[in-house]
Amino acid sequence: MAETIFSKILRNEIPCNRIYEDELVLAFLDINPVSKGHVLVIPREEAETLDKLSEQSAAALGKALPRIARAVMAVTGAQHFNILQNNGAPSHQAVMHVHFHVIPKYDDGTGLGIVWKAGTLEDGEALAAAIADAL
Amino acid sequence: MAETIFSKILRNEIPCNRIYEDELVLAFLDINPVSKGHVLVIPREEAETLDKLSEQSAAALGKALPRIARAVMAVTGAQHFNILQNNGAPSHQAVMHVHFHVIPKYDDGTGLGIVWKAGTLEDGEALAAAIADAL
Repeated sequence: MAETIFSKILRNEIPCNRIYEDELVLAFLDINPVSKGHVLVIPREEAETLDKLSEQSAAALGKALPRIARAVMAVTGAQHFNILQNNGAPSHQAVMHVHFHVIPKYDDGTGLGIVWKAGTLEDGEALAAAIADAL
Repeated sequence: MAETIFSKILRNEIPCNRIYEDELVLAFLDINPVSKGHVLVIPREEAETLDKLSEQSAAALGKALPRIARAVMAVTGAQHFNILQNNGAPSHQAVMHVHFHVIPKYDDGTGLGIVWKAGTLEDGEALAAAIADAL
């Protein structure tokens, strides 16, 4: 994969507002926050999208999220939040290194906006069986 | 926390189109998909929001996501996808049991819609230090 700004942050060549780190994970404030306390949680492993990330790094990201979310809520006073992780430019991924957004949602509506156009599941049994077989 | 429809699915009292399960995690098709192959990944642990979930269950969810995403993409042909996890009704959480959405994004634009109004980080150093202290 191509080098990204996150590679430079991981190597301490570019500064960041660090919140948490361990052997596999780094978390820091997004410099273009959607709301106050918007945090990025990234793996040290270089992977463009989540489907290409090791299970070990993915588990470490998952493990870090509840603790980081609690701290963000405690400091900002936000009562709600969204976790978002985009894969591919058409899915709004801007930096091509896996990252989870932790975005507080405030009572004034500030935070992530979601457009949700849901349909009705058809042929669910066959689709589920095909996906299960592909695992 | 109050009983949800996911509790009934976990106890096999309500059927689902199952894709994956292990000791801590269950994944199945969303019956109101935003796009074809829309999957829900949930912990067996009863927790309303991610901040209340154990690190063990959160790690298990994280670990399952890359494998499930790969299988969904292989079967549907989608090249891109979003992971979304909402906490609290104002954040669009509809079922009050932790769940990660895996939502394929198709070339025709079908999939998750995102409204992204970003600002500029101010007083990042102090905010990051406060959150780090609250961890």
